Parts: sequence; structure tokens; C-alpha cells
Amino acid sequence: MEELSTKSLELHSRYKGKLKIGVKMTIENMQDLSLVYSPGVAAPCEEIFHNPDKIYDYTIKGNAVAVVSDGSAVLGLGNIGGGASMPVMEGKAALFKGFAGIDAFPICLNTQDPELIISTVKALEPTFGGINLEDISAPNCFIIEERLKKEMNIPVFHDDQHGTAIVTCAALINALKLVQKNIEDVKVVVNGAGAAGVAVTKLLLNLGVQDIILCDSKGAIYKERIDGMNPIKETLAEQTNKNRISGSLEDVIRGTDVFIGVSVAGAITPEMIHSMNRNAIIFAMANPIPEIMPDIATAAGATVVGTGRSDLPNQVNNVLAFPGVFKGALQVLASEINEEMKLAAVYAIANLVDSSLLRNDYVIPNPFDERVVQAVSNAVANAAIETGVARKTIHLEHDQITISG
Amino acid sequence: MEELSTKSLELHSRYKGKLKIGVKMTIENMQDLSLVYSPGVAAPCEEIFHNPDKIYDYTIKGNAVAVVSDGSAVLGLGNIGGGASMPVMEGKAALFKGFAGIDAFPICLNTQDPELIISTVKALEPTFGGINLEDISAPNCFIIEERLKKEMNIPVFHDDQHGTAIVTCAALINALKLVQKNIEDVKVVVNGAGAAGVAVTKLLLNLGVQDIILCDSKGAIYKERIDGMNPIKETLAEQTNKNRISGSLEDVIRGTDVFIGVSVAGAITPEMIHSMNRNAIIFAMANPIPEIMPDIATAAGATVVGTGRSDLPNQVNNVLAFPGVFKGALQVLASEINEEMKLAAVYAIANLVDSSLLRNDYVIPNPFDERVVQAVSNAVANAAIETGVARKTIHLEHDQITISG
Repeated sequence: MEELSTKSLELHSRYKGKLKIGVKMTIENMQDLSLVYSPGVAAPCEEIFHNPDKIYDYTIKGNAVAVVSDGSAVLGLGNIGGGASMPVMEGKAALFKGFAGIDAFPICLNTQDPELIISTVKALEPTFGGINLEDISAPNCFIIEERLKKEMNIPVFHDDQHGTAIVTCAALINALKLVQKNIEDVKVVVNGAGAAGVAVTKLLLNLGVQDIILCDSKGAIYKERIDGMNPIKETLAEQTNKNRISGSLEDVIRGTDVFIGVSVAGAITPEMIHSMNRNAIIFAMANPIPEIMPDIATAAGATVVGTGRSDLPNQVNNVLAFPGVFKGALQVLASEINEEMKLAAVYAIANLVDSSLLRNDYVIPNPFDERVVQAVSNAVANAAIETGVARKTIHLEHDQITISG
Repeated sequence: MEELSTKSLELHSRYKGKLKIGVKMTIENMQDLSLVYSPGVAAPCEEIFHNPDKIYDYTIKGNAVAVVSDGSAVLGLGNIGGGASMPVMEGKAALFKGFAGIDAFPICLNTQDPELIISTVKALEPTFGGINLEDISAPNCFIIEERLKKEMNIPVFHDDQHGTAIVTCAALINALKLVQKNIEDVKVVVNGAGAAGVAVTKLLLNLGVQDIILCDSKGAIYKERIDGMNPIKETLAEQTNKNRISGSLEDVIRGTDVFIGVSVAGAITPEMIHSMNRNAIIFAMANPIPEIMPDIATAAGATVVGTGRSDLPNQVNNVLAFPGVFKGALQVLASEINEEMKLAAVYAIANLVDSSLLRNDYVIPNPFDERVVQAVSNAVANAAIETGVARKTIHLEHDQITISG
């Protein structure tokens, strides 16, 4: 880890960050200048003025995504502020470009006031075709996303919520195939009721899971619990834990089939896994140290174990989702990224691992599997068209996916 | 012009705008991913968290400029709004990159409320090393620039004001050499009291011009004029037109040496030029049609004539100023772009035309003169250091200037 840090610092300082602007037209003489800028540039301006949708024909908007953060919940680092979050948001933008050819740009803010974040992002609407919210702490992330989705006409997507949820659900679908359990029958415990836990829970419900108990640091969340509740937990308490089971994680995990951890290192013990049903599935996604290490989980009886780490099997990596999700949404000028589009992404990712290839340590594609972006973007674009949120219907072709600088 | 429009539309739609994002590091395998993004990216984040100035070492901030517009006063098109201004702001960003290697990005806003523009741009401070305001109408442009300069710690520069002023003053210095008049002795009329006219007048005063009359559509501005005044005109009325001369442009231009037009086509007639002193200097910079065409001005007795047009001699083109001004400011992490830095840019541009080469139709360098950016940025950086606004003192080297896509 120290070696990695040293190398990362050296790389970041050598290049002074990760992004650069490129110019798609040549500017070598007065003629070029008169086309790229005044007076020729007046023509596309006038076209857009008379027909606002032409902005997608004549500018970068249709392929531009803002990676917006206030730096309040960055990786495992916590609230380091907008400035210190720049390397992450630049990195995220680099992944958008590298994996999906999307021209993403970091927008790191020096405010953590939700109203100011909302007004700022809304003001940027002419420039961007999509908004990726990143590393904003709960509950502000929910408030900000909800308002922006309502008040903007471009897709708004909080990746820490939905990216994580999509990839986790894809991994779960394949893990269930492997252990031959039906998604309608399994009992699931989600540990952690922050941005990721809430989104995972919602998507699991939409996926058809009937029995979910969501836990936070105070244990199981149930209807009419008093301590440590908030409006989002209350809403989810209506939809989960139908028997209003109370108790600690240790109490409620007994006899369940799936544990999904988006919490902290050490949150689950071998004893807890031992108390689960046979062929337990464990996704321990705390970063950088998982809720339990895979070898220990396996020894305690788990059949499939995934984490967030690239050096362990079954990495639940958001890069499997967000590039394709945005690519698909942008391709058809979707006005939003709705539940159907997220579910389409889930199945697209899951289906890339052929049933015959499924193994305990391979339930999810590798992040560099070149089929992923195309499969996800096609599925998402189609779902957008089918649900009527696409403003443009395109013929989806197979195009070359290049992953590089 | 129609052919140019057709070609411009074709180019803009072929490339879907002018900019693209490039990635400076490779992302081809898990090792790359762990350096560019999690977990390696945590190292520069932590460094910046503990020492905020390190953001300039580890991110693009130090070379990133926002080209901000509300689309309220775009080229000759007027108030077309933020969306329709995108082609211009993207074009401006392309010029920043092409001429100075600066990674500029358009920030087109869907609001024209000065307070909302101010709060939005301020919120973006972690991301950008400088703010170029563009095509914002008066008087909002003055209010917005003044507030942002006070409330942000990075350079804020309204190019329609200061870029135009710098290049006009450089052209004037050389024109005066040619007609052998001293700047302290000449009488100047500035026609147009919008963003450009105000800034030109201020910079002329700082350059040592003693006798200026600023005119608006109601004629000469003088202290205690009642009609059509505003706080900025009142301030300038204190510093110009010391004899409180009233009257139309036609009245006050008589017996002057220099006419600077930032107004409208046809604002000055041959008769008015005829009423000026011998060896009159005319900068007729209305776009796209100048206040008077050069051949007519010359026939009426003018000695040096410049316009804003690339197809006519002595083009007063802002591209001579803003790329070098920002490059110089960014190189030394200047906290602002002050008057001394603007004056340094004026002389740097003027001095690139050697006295022996000065001609009536060559008082200002060509926009593609490759010496310009380096000369301007060095002069601006030195002036920043000398006036104590540089946070970094660098050894200025001659580096290669490449102008291309």
C-alpha cells in the first residue's frame, strides 16, 4: 500500500493530474479561426437559439458528464472537502473516458450546503448531458439527487448509490444461480444504511427479493423503531422486515442466505456466517478492508464471497456499471436514469458470465472485460426507449470499445 | 458569410462540438486502475487535505480555466442564453488550448441572475485555476467580476473588457509611434460605454492618456450629466472629460487624435474623421461591421485604421492577449490579474512589432505570430511577481509554443 501511494503521488505530480483538454478541429490559420470562433461560430449559436435541442448536434453537451462532488464522503477518507476530492473526481472522469469514451469533467465544489449544491449544479445544465454525483454524504446525497432529478432535464445519477447497487445485484443474481436458490425465496441482510445500503435495498426489492432486513449500527431497522431513524429508513422500514424483527446484526443474520455489507471492516464474524443457511453468499464491500476477509468467510461456511477489492475474487467494481449506464442514457438522450434502466444494466452485467463458466470465484465480469460497456449501454438505451424517457431512438450498433488514455 | 456559416455548421455537427477530454495516464489493467483511482488515489487526496496548495501539484487545477457565460451578450447576437452560447464558449476554450496549452472548459449557465452566477462560479473554485468571464452583458459583468475578484482566490478576468482593452492599447501605442505623437498629449474619444468601452477607457488612463472623452448613445459623458448614467459612468466621468464637454460624438470628436469605437456599425462618418486632427488614428471595432470601413476612413484622412475583423488590416483580436495573460498568471499561481499585469501585456504585445517594421497597416502582431503567447505570459508572470500577487516564483524558460488541435 505504501509503495502504491508513492507511485500514485509520483504519477499524479509528474502529469499534474489525469485529464487534459483536446481540440477536435485544427486552429492553424485565420480560416480555421473564423470557423471555430468568430464569425463562423455564430451559425451554430443561432441554430441552437431557434431550436434548443440542436445543442446536441453542435456542441459537446451530448457526450459531456459532470462528476460532481462536495468531498463530504470520499472513498474511505471521509469528509476531506471539495479540493482534496479532486484526484478522485478527475480519476472518475478518466474512467468515464477510458471505459466509455465519455467526455467527463470534475466539478468539485467548495460548499457542502445542499441548497447551494443544487442551485450550482442546476445552473450548469446547458453545459452537460448528464450529472454523476459522487462521494456526497448521506442524507444530503438523497436530498440533492431527488431535487436534481426533478428539476433538471438531463440524467442525474449518484454512483455511490446506484452504481454499487447495480453491480451488487448482478453479482447476487449469478451467485444465486450457482447455489441454486431463487431470488424470491432468499433471505437477505443488508448491513449499512448509508447511500449504498439504501440503494442496494431498493434495487433488491425491484429485483424481486421478498425478505430483506436492513441493518445500521443500531441493528435491524423495523417499522416503528425509534432510535436513529430518518425519513429514508422509515420508508424502507415499510418495504422490508415485514415481521418487524428487532435485534443486532448477530441476532437477525441467523438463518439468512445472503449478507451484503456496505459498512465497516470486521462487521461480520465467522460465527455469524456459521449461523446463516447453507451455501451462504457474502458480499463484504467495506473499503479498503472488507467486513470479513474471503478466506475466513469461506472457512466459516460461505460458498460465494465478493468484496470491493481488486486483489480478491469477485470484485464488485462500479466501473462495470456507470460507464455503460451513462453511455446508454446519452445515446438516446434519456431525460433520466430510471429503475427499469438500472435493472436492465443489472441483467446485462450478470448475463456476461455464461452459466457454464460460473464458479464460486467468478460470478461477475472482470472490470476490463471489453464486452461490458457495450452490453450495458445497449440494455440501458433500450430500456430508456421502452419506458418512454428517450428523446432519440437510435439504431444500436456494435462499435469498437477502446480502453486507454 | 453564408458559405462560412454552412461550413461552420457542417464542421460543428461532424465533430459534435470542438472539445474532447484526454487522459494523461494509461488505464489498461488493474494496476493502472489502482493508481488512477481507488485505492492509490487516496494518497494525493490526503496530501491535498493536509496542504491545500498541493492541489496544484496533483491535479489539473493549475492549468484549468473555466470559460463562464450566461449568454447575455454573445458576439453580435445579443442575449441568446447560456445554451446557445455553448459553441462560442467551447470555441474560446479551444483557443485557450490551441494558443497557450491551457485546459479550458466551457461553463455555460442557465441563469442570468448575478447573485446566482456569483454563487455558482464561487462554488467551482476547487476545480479551476482561473475564471474567464465571457459575453456577459453590462452592467452585470461589472458587478459579477468585481465580486468574484474579491471573493475568490484565483484570477478572474472578463475578456470582453480587459482582453479588448489590452490589445487596443497595444495597437494604439504602436500607431502613436508611427504618427509620432506622445500618449500624454493626444486627445482620445472612446465611443461605447459597455464592457469594452469602460475597460479601454480605464486602461488608457493607466497608460498615461490625459485627455479622454467617453461617449455613449447619448453623446459625451461628463460629470453631472443626468440622462442615462450609471455608477460606472459616474466614476469614469470623474476621471475623464475634465472640461465637462457635452454634445454628440460629432461635436466632441472635432480636434481629437484618436477614435476608439466599441459601438455599432456606421457610428462614425467620413465628415467626423475629417474634423479630427491630422494623422488621425481610428480603431473601429464593432462586429461584424465596423463603425467605418478602413478604405473610407483612410480616404477621409485617417492614417492608421484597425478593426476587429480578420479580413482587414490591423485586426484587434483578443486572442493576442487572453492566452498569454492566463498562462502567465497560472505559471506563478497569481491570486489575481491586476492593472500592472495588464499593462505588462500591453507593452509585450506592442513591442513584438519592431519599430523598423511598423506600417500603417501593421501596428499589431498577427494572431498566429508564435512569439506572442510566450512574450505576454513572461511579461504577465514577471509583473505578478513584482506586484506581490504571485504565490510561486518560477524560472521563466523559453518553451515550445504549438498551435494546433
